Amino acid sequence: MPHPFDPGWFQEPFRTLAAEYPEADVYPSDQFRLEWGPIFHRGRLDGSARVLVIGQDPAQHEAIVRRILVGEAGRRLQGLLAKLGITRSYVLVNTFLYSVYGSVKAATRRDPRLVAYRNRWLDALLVGSEVDAVLTLGTAAAEAWQLWKATPAGQSSNVAHAAVTHPTQPESSSKGDTVNLAAATKKLLESWNAGLQVLSPAVAHPDAPRPLVLYGPAWAEGDRPPVQEIDFPAGLPAWMRELDGWAERDGKDDLAKRRNITITVPKEVLQ
Amino acid sequence: MPHPFDPGWFQEPFRTLAAEYPEADVYPSDQFRLEWGPIFHRGRLDGSARVLVIGQDPAQHEAIVRRILVGEAGRRLQGLLAKLGITRSYVLVNTFLYSVYGSVKAATRRDPRLVAYRNRWLDALLVGSEVDAVLTLGTAAAEAWQLWKATPAGQSSNVAHAAVTHPTQPESSSKGDTVNLAAATKKLLESWNAGLQVLSPAVAHPDAPRPLVLYGPAWAEGDRPPVQEIDFPAGLPAWMRELDGWAERDGKDDLAKRRNITITVPKEVLQ
Repeated sequence: MPHPFDPGWFQEPFRTLAAEYPEADVYPSDQFRLEWGPIFHRGRLDGSARVLVIGQDPAQHEAIVRRILVGEAGRRLQGLLAKLGITRSYVLVNTFLYSVYGSVKAATRRDPRLVAYRNRWLDALLVGSEVDAVLTLGTAAAEAWQLWKATPAGQSSNVAHAAVTHPTQPESSSKGDTVNLAAATKKLLESWNAGLQVLSPAVAHPDAPRPLVLYGPAWAEGDRPPVQEIDFPAGLPAWMRELDGWAERDGKDDLAKRRNITITVPKEVLQ
Repeated sequence: MPHPFDPGWFQEPFRTLAAEYPEADVYPSDQFRLEWGPIFHRGRLDGSARVLVIGQDPAQHEAIVRRILVGEAGRRLQGLLAKLGITRSYVLVNTFLYSVYGSVKAATRRDPRLVAYRNRWLDALLVGSEVDAVLTLGTAAAEAWQLWKATPAGQSSNVAHAAVTHPTQPESSSKGDTVNLAAATKKLLESWNAGLQVLSPAVAHPDAPRPLVLYGPAWAEGDRPPVQEIDFPAGLPAWMRELDGWAERDGKDDLAKRRNITITVPKEVLQ
């Protein structure tokens, strides 16, 4: 059975963007996990994308797959895109190239070099492209969008945009409290429904046209489809797409955890 | 500073080869670590390779980098290629797509489907190409070469070939005994010197021409240069090339070890 894969950054301008990226002088190592390298994107770079998504930053699964939004947040996003009829024609970039460590200072976030590099990606993906709609996940991504909109290219773009809550905000805000988690999930899905209503009319060429069906008050079956095989580099095993929680940061203290990623093949695959 | 990278399998026939590979029916999971996926190659796929190397099988560092011969064996090989004046114009494939688990049965090794897929790679890299010399590492790779040589394409090829001992054979054969290790290393380097003397006259277009300097009786300074940045996928951190031993299989028993890869950022990078 053939396994379609993402051929990556072989064409310009992505080939240069993937070779010339900001490093420690722009992304300080006390705010970012520089040590795992930059992680650039997920999805179509061949001009076929109809929806562009801006996420926040990569975590441990992304450091292994070398594509963004491949864990639980990615699956939730995949479900949202499917509601727009977009099953393949999407491209995702992050606000930050590196995984956030702790929190990001405002001066870093707005560093003109950090912003300029990200804007080169957005120019490449938006100027003269077929993208009909832009979705931003969380506040940092919404700011990234505004910073691009303030550029000459951004000013002359009239692509539809919706800013929604980040897919895993309910988990990070509720810290294990199940009542708060349910409330935050309900709020998230309301935010996503609002976003869907803005973007749905703008998506003129869905891959799989379908009437818009909004989210209910909680996750329902089918809301978290697996990430597409064609988004992954060649040869990666299916469980890296189909399952989550296979990569963890383990260690007895903060430094040991920062230095570690432990991968465990899920029991479903090997026992 | 720009970071050149390997753009991978974006051109035919490699694009198809990286999408259509043998799986569990050809590589049984009691002899191969299927669960980490196939790992295809390292080096030039753009026709610029002058030396082709056949290795054996990938291990844990290769499962993370998704390129072959990137650990200690890869660095030793890099030194051998440098002695031929080849610093960039090489391409490496393995006898087996997946990491060997235990040992490989003869029937598996000679499975016509396994051989045919590998021969498609060798055809793509050798027929009508600029490759002047082929180096095989270890007995399985030497057999892989003979199986290609027995095909019509192989029969009509007159590329030079040398079969040498696998770069980490001294470690695996001596099992921690330092006297045996020194003796096996000496034998390895004699084997490599014999290979160099066969291949050196055949390498007509070295990247960095130099007189042939053979190995001494033990590893010397400069014999294990780092793997080239241009061989790695984009965005991988430098320590994955410059240092070794950062990936291990940990676990309390064989199954737990098989399910695990633990990555630790070296102390030199983060402490």
